[in-house]
Amino acid sequence: MVAILVLNGPNLNTLGKREPGVYGTLTLDMINERIYARGEALGATVECFQSNHEGALIDCIQQHAEQVDGIIINPGAFTHYSYAIRDALAAAKLPIIEVHLSNVYAREAFRHHSVIAPICLGQIAGLGWRGYLLALEALVADLQEDK
Amino acid sequence: MVAILVLNGPNLNTLGKREPGVYGTLTLDMINERIYARGEALGATVECFQSNHEGALIDCIQQHAEQVDGIIINPGAFTHYSYAIRDALAAAKLPIIEVHLSNVYAREAFRHHSVIAPICLGQIAGLGWRGYLLALEALVADLQEDK
Amino acid sequence: MVAILVLNGPNLNTLGKREPGVYGTLTLDMINERIYARGEALGATVECFQSNHEGALIDCIQQHAEQVDGIIINPGAFTHYSYAIRDALAAAKLPIIEVHLSNVYAREAFRHHSVIAPICLGQIAGLGWRGYLLALEALVADLQEDK
Amino acid sequence: MVAILVLNGPNLNTLGKREPGVYGTLTLDMINERIYARGEALGATVECFQSNHEGALIDCIQQHAEQVDGIIINPGAFTHYSYAIRDALAAAKLPIIEVHLSNVYAREAFRHHSVIAPICLGQIAGLGWRGYLLALEALVADLQEDK
Amino acid sequence: MVAILVLNGPNLNTLGKREPGVYGTLTLDMINERIYARGEALGATVECFQSNHEGALIDCIQQHAEQVDGIIINPGAFTHYSYAIRDALAAAKLPIIEVHLSNVYAREAFRHHSVIAPICLGQIAGLGWRGYLLALEALVADLQEDK
Amino acid sequence: MVAILVLNGPNLNTLGKREPGVYGTLTLDMINERIYARGEALGATVECFQSNHEGALIDCIQQHAEQVDGIIINPGAFTHYSYAIRDALAAAKLPIIEVHLSNVYAREAFRHHSVIAPICLGQIAGLGWRGYLLALEALVADLQEDK
Amino acid sequence: MVAILVLNGPNLNTLGKREPGVYGTLTLDMINERIYARGEALGATVECFQSNHEGALIDCIQQHAEQVDGIIINPGAFTHYSYAIRDALAAAKLPIIEVHLSNVYAREAFRHHSVIAPICLGQIAGLGWRGYLLALEALVADLQEDK
Amino acid sequence: MVAILVLNGPNLNTLGKREPGVYGTLTLDMINERIYARGEALGATVECFQSNHEGALIDCIQQHAEQVDGIIINPGAFTHYSYAIRDALAAAKLPIIEVHLSNVYAREAFRHHSVIAPICLGQIAGLGWRGYLLALEALVADLQEDK
Amino acid sequence: MVAILVLNGPNLNTLGKREPGVYGTLTLDMINERIYARGEALGATVECFQSNHEGALIDCIQQHAEQVDGIIINPGAFTHYSYAIRDALAAAKLPIIEVHLSNVYAREAFRHHSVIAPICLGQIAGLGWRGYLLALEALVADLQEDK
Amino acid sequence: MVAILVLNGPNLNTLGKREPGVYGTLTLDMINERIYARGEALGATVECFQSNHEGALIDCIQQHAEQVDGIIINPGAFTHYSYAIRDALAAAKLPIIEVHLSNVYAREAFRHHSVIAPICLGQIAGLGWRGYLLALEALVADLQEDK
Amino acid sequence: MVAILVLNGPNLNTLGKREPGVYGTLTLDMINERIYARGEALGATVECFQSNHEGALIDCIQQHAEQVDGIIINPGAFTHYSYAIRDALAAAKLPIIEVHLSNVYAREAFRHHSVIAPICLGQIAGLGWRGYLLALEALVADLQEDK
Amino acid sequence: MVAILVLNGPNLNTLGKREPGVYGTLTLDMINERIYARGEALGATVECFQSNHEGALIDCIQQHAEQVDGIIINPGAFTHYSYAIRDALAAAKLPIIEVHLSNVYAREAFRHHSVIAPICLGQIAGLGWRGYLLALEALVADLQEDK
Repeated sequence: MVAILVLNGPNLNTLGKREPGVYGTLTLDMINERIYARGEALGATVECFQSNHEGALIDCIQQHAEQVDGIIINPGAFTHYSYAIRDALAAAKLPIIEVHLSNVYAREAFRHHSVIAPICLGQIAGLGWRGYLLALEALVADLQEDK
Repeated sequence: MVAILVLNGPNLNTLGKREPGVYGTLTLDMINERIYARGEALGATVECFQSNHEGALIDCIQQHAEQVDGIIINPGAFTHYSYAIRDALAAAKLPIIEVHLSNVYAREAFRHHSVIAPICLGQIAGLGWRGYLLALEALVADLQEDK
Repeated sequence: MVAILVLNGPNLNTLGKREPGVYGTLTLDMINERIYARGEALGATVECFQSNHEGALIDCIQQHAEQVDGIIINPGAFTHYSYAIRDALAAAKLPIIEVHLSNVYAREAFRHHSVIAPICLGQIAGLGWRGYLLALEALVADLQEDK
Repeated sequence: MVAILVLNGPNLNTLGKREPGVYGTLTLDMINERIYARGEALGATVECFQSNHEGALIDCIQQHAEQVDGIIINPGAFTHYSYAIRDALAAAKLPIIEVHLSNVYAREAFRHHSVIAPICLGQIAGLGWRGYLLALEALVADLQEDK
Repeated sequence: MVAILVLNGPNLNTLGKREPGVYGTLTLDMINERIYARGEALGATVECFQSNHEGALIDCIQQHAEQVDGIIINPGAFTHYSYAIRDALAAAKLPIIEVHLSNVYAREAFRHHSVIAPICLGQIAGLGWRGYLLALEALVADLQEDK
Repeated sequence: MVAILVLNGPNLNTLGKREPGVYGTLTLDMINERIYARGEALGATVECFQSNHEGALIDCIQQHAEQVDGIIINPGAFTHYSYAIRDALAAAKLPIIEVHLSNVYAREAFRHHSVIAPICLGQIAGLGWRGYLLALEALVADLQEDK
Repeated sequence: MVAILVLNGPNLNTLGKREPGVYGTLTLDMINERIYARGEALGATVECFQSNHEGALIDCIQQHAEQVDGIIINPGAFTHYSYAIRDALAAAKLPIIEVHLSNVYAREAFRHHSVIAPICLGQIAGLGWRGYLLALEALVADLQEDK
Repeated sequence: MVAILVLNGPNLNTLGKREPGVYGTLTLDMINERIYARGEALGATVECFQSNHEGALIDCIQQHAEQVDGIIINPGAFTHYSYAIRDALAAAKLPIIEVHLSNVYAREAFRHHSVIAPICLGQIAGLGWRGYLLALEALVADLQEDK
Repeated sequence: MVAILVLNGPNLNTLGKREPGVYGTLTLDMINERIYARGEALGATVECFQSNHEGALIDCIQQHAEQVDGIIINPGAFTHYSYAIRDALAAAKLPIIEVHLSNVYAREAFRHHSVIAPICLGQIAGLGWRGYLLALEALVADLQEDK
Repeated sequence: MVAILVLNGPNLNTLGKREPGVYGTLTLDMINERIYARGEALGATVECFQSNHEGALIDCIQQHAEQVDGIIINPGAFTHYSYAIRDALAAAKLPIIEVHLSNVYAREAFRHHSVIAPICLGQIAGLGWRGYLLALEALVADLQEDK
Repeated sequence: MVAILVLNGPNLNTLGKREPGVYGTLTLDMINERIYARGEALGATVECFQSNHEGALIDCIQQHAEQVDGIIINPGAFTHYSYAIRDALAAAKLPIIEVHLSNVYAREAFRHHSVIAPICLGQIAGLGWRGYLLALEALVADLQEDK
Repeated sequence: MVAILVLNGPNLNTLGKREPGVYGTLTLDMINERIYARGEALGATVECFQSNHEGALIDCIQQHAEQVDGIIINPGAFTHYSYAIRDALAAAKLPIIEVHLSNVYAREAFRHHSVIAPICLGQIAGLGWRGYLLALEALVADLQEDK
């Protein structure tokens, strides 16, 4: 049975309240419930964590690096400058999928560049909360294939 | 019942033969079969088209713009310069998902920029042939939500 | 009597249907009729051609280079990257006027640069379908002056 | 009856004497006469003004903003840096056509960028003195259409 | 009665000790006292918060977003890269004024660019501790005008 | 008693009429009255001058450099390119505050850069006509402190 | 016996007629005859193909990838933007020599960059029609060395 | 006998008072006297003109273009952006020497680029008021050589 | 006796486990022991601190600024963007040596630029754990020289 | 009989020893022998010179400029910055072919730009030691054609 | 016993005389004596060489490449452009440490980039003459570790 | 009596033969004679030196730094990249005038930037051989003024 860590970065704790036109009306708790349910359906244990603190996300990655088989991360605005999270993720040596709720390529120029993407397996952007479920599906399939 | 057009750009007809380490061992026909099957399962009719000719892809988009409800496109190398395909897709005024087999953000710098992405609903990259199925799932869900 | 070739690039065949707020409500056929009529009034024979295929436009330029006295071209999105069309036009050694229906300088940054413009006589942008008629008028006058 | 203001920027008062190979042999007075004549033929009153002083051009735009229905401007070298003229033109909230005698895109790099163009209806470049007449024709037609 | 949150970012807790020639001799506590006093005079309740931790600033913004009517922020060095704070501020959907003690435009090049400024109402820079009071005055006036 | 020169650059004479959504509904005369009143209240004599002519602004700065104790300037569009006004201001060797009615950092990219700012004491942007009053308050306080 | 594919891109079919001062007076047929003759002399079978269509060149590369031992290509203007041809050539996994008739480094800036060169064995530029013969000589020698 | 026009741009009328450490202690009148004297010694008539107004400098260039044999110009800050003065000078078709009192290459980056220099005969920078005399000497010698 | 603060930034707590090929096999504790030992040998008291939290590093610098005589810092990925740490270090007004275990100049482009380096005494990169000892040696020598 | 100078720049004297995987196993002497032999076969006298000293290469070019009919040069790393060698070659006013052993376009970015190429007849890159022989063949043919 | 070559580039022969505030008061001979002494202490033979001639440095590197076990180099200003020295050092296939007396990252922008650093083991900057001794220590340790 | 060193860089020894249209018809010896004569007239001893070797120029600067009172240098192509010569000149701590025969600002872009200019007193460009005499005149005057 595979184990997956699902990470959400800054401001994603306000999902559902903040700019629903851009990010949808579901709260992070509601999305997490769907992620847990889909994990169960796929035979994967999932753990979800959110923080507005870059350091807390790095601590969390380091603590789970040996316990989980893959990571799904929506780094929020850290996507664009947190080389520290990139290094933590790269050091974990796990398959990682980066998720963005909105289509970052259709927004401000600074959102077009991800410092995280180059060390990931892949990226899903613009598909809303479903992006997490699709990432979970892809990551579990990818991990089971390797076994 | 929703109708989806699945487009593949230059060199994707050689999938399975060309650099399997990067693009996987399935041929385009084998991938298309899986797409058709998943479409059927999702209650969607799917039509697949591939061409090495930019103009043929534009012709195809124009001809299907009024018959389909959404488009999935892997523009291949046209991703990086075909503003003509971008214009054709934008004119279709349909939800579009861009798919890349490999994680373009982990490859040469010129592959990091997509001229297509800004006019899409979203993007899936690096998840191999499964990316098409996930895109199909997301697109059908998105379309059914709108109804 | 002067002979003029009027070329239209990708997606201009959908004029009148596609984004009428930006490009106007006339179809390409309706515009061409007005071009033929104005040509007749000016004592010029006009031939119109449209294609979504870069290669077809180049073939057409090469085939007409010795038969016509001038070219009017709306290269559509090819404006921004088709050095191949530029080379074909330059090789024709004819006076050329580049036409754009919309004011490209008021749109996305990539539309501000034309690889075609440096080898033209001049450019008309933002004046809608009238731009073709004005170009025709200018080109005929320019050609008659040289005689 | 529509009223049009035709503005010419720095050094255009020396037309006909200065680099005739580039700018033609007609003086500005001769061109203005043709503009007045064409205006009359089109049922438009035209007023022409030239200055080498950026401030004088801005004053003129402000004074005419409520009296005229459209502006034709050849900003000369101010094209490339006068954000002050741009602001004055934008504040006028009138349709504007930018005219250049020579094909600026075939000359020095600094002439390829216009700070005026983004707030105009359109641009005509490289068609010599005829550019003013074509602009007048287009502007009058555009204004009559709106009525 | 309007409520205002006044935020100070990293290293502003050492004000008065650190480079007094650049930042002045008042400590943050002394400045805050003046802010509270001015708030009282203007009929506004003010709450001040400082942190060297980006995450703590984001937490604070989220917690106050619904309780206050406006925000004054001196993001310190976060000005130049914290897209996460920008997102938190933008999500608050409140009028915001950015304050800098020194004239950032007269210092190192990296200090000339603010990632926060585009989502603010306005900016005050180079006016020392008085900048906070002026911002308070402007923000209260702006808020009372809207009522 | 301190003396302050308040300068306004091109197009600011049309305030109140021009784009009130961006620049407010007060005319320059109405703003100037408030500036004179505030000056009186602060014990400062104020002189206001506006011109669309870069040279006239430079002349004015030179003529007042020895008569006044500080300058407040809204350079309008000259903000972005008038190194000549910058040199005149720098030569005056007086404390200067740059004022912008709108938040220039939330507008077109060319408005983000000020050639004037590096030689000023500080900058106030985005706070409308109140920005002049705040600048006056700050400048008078700064000057009285020095005495 | 080695087999070589010689490809020519857009506008090279007009060689001998188009700008002989730049490209020489030989037609493509005359050059091809010399290539066939030199191939025969070197014990190599040669097949020549030209197209103005990017897609046709890609089709041709795909169809010959398994039949030939090496490719010589003059991509014409596609040199500067056809990542699609680059991908097709790279997928062929054959030694490739890029040929340019003129010295592209002495011409317009856009001609200085080749998107094809990085996946080639080498490049010959500026040596006219002889470049093809030298490329043939080098490619045959290189292939025979490997055997 | 040759005739020379000596032009000085914005803020050069305050020479001797303004930043003597950078620009020297001589006033413009004192420098002009030396220029007149040297002109006389060299057998040249000299006319000096200064203005803070770009338009006045252009007017002056146009009015003297046919009366003088060469121009010496210190464009002040206009050096860096006045393409209008450049065009006026270029149209004069006379030998021109650009003079700067200070070594512009040792100052702020924006002072390193001259839009005037490319259309001049030469440039003298950093040699103070002597630069004008040296320019005069060189220009007269150059003109007499041509005769 | 001099006192030195040795700081390590994000992910350096996983040294010895993470990419030993790049960063060596010693854990941070093992390296710290060597640093303490070398400090003792050099007659210096050393205090070591590591955190994944930018804010915690800033807090630590502020708290020690008056207690220590110099700082050695390996900012990890914060090297490339933490202007907040830079400001904290600069405010400490102490001699600082920046240490990197790997040769950052031989790795990804983003690692070539340090925002910390300009406010340091010097930098040691690529010499593994020995870099800390060499930095200690240099810093102690530098401090003793000043006394 | 034509005379050719063959120049090799820095580090090419270590050919055969240095990175044979990149540059081949032949020493420079062995390559020179083949060049002499081919020269003899082509009826050309050849002189070979190598130096690690930029100045020595310039001296050599100047001394032979009048004695030889053409130059073949592999400038080694000087390719990328020696404008002094470029000037010496340009002053020779002879046909020049630039040769690189490896495909510089497939290596580090700094090797993609040649300051020498714009003043050459042509360039051969990536064809190993054979590149010199091909260059010789082309140069002799070019020279004989001109006679 | 390991052998080390210590190289110093242009202008380092004037150490002690030239800008002692930046580079220290020791002459190169005095520094070399300390290097020899430290080498002896570490059981290493050291050879020191300085030249203002790029070619002489390359000759020296080539001549010692097989005799020494490592190189310490302060390339002086060649740091920023001598790709020829870089190539010579890379061809030596030895561990290399780059030393700079001053903190190049705190000086002019052109000094921030080293073309030598990417092919070195590491770099020491800003630690004065001690940098050479620290480099020696590190290099000897590194070499002895490998044995 | 002042002593001046006059330096000429690469390719200036071929003056009079090389591109006389650009650089004039006088040989370097003829120019030097005029320089010696003018020096004598001005009461200055002059020494002239030319080399194609960067190192030789640096050696020469170092050897004369204490014997001369000022330097005139035409660095030829070294102007654009020799930071080593810049460092040697800066270390001499003498007034320096940079001379260019041609107007470098009217030639290729790479000639517009001088790495030498920022450490000079001034620059004279485009005035041919007279530039040396004018530089001598200015340098002697400047030196005598200081005494």
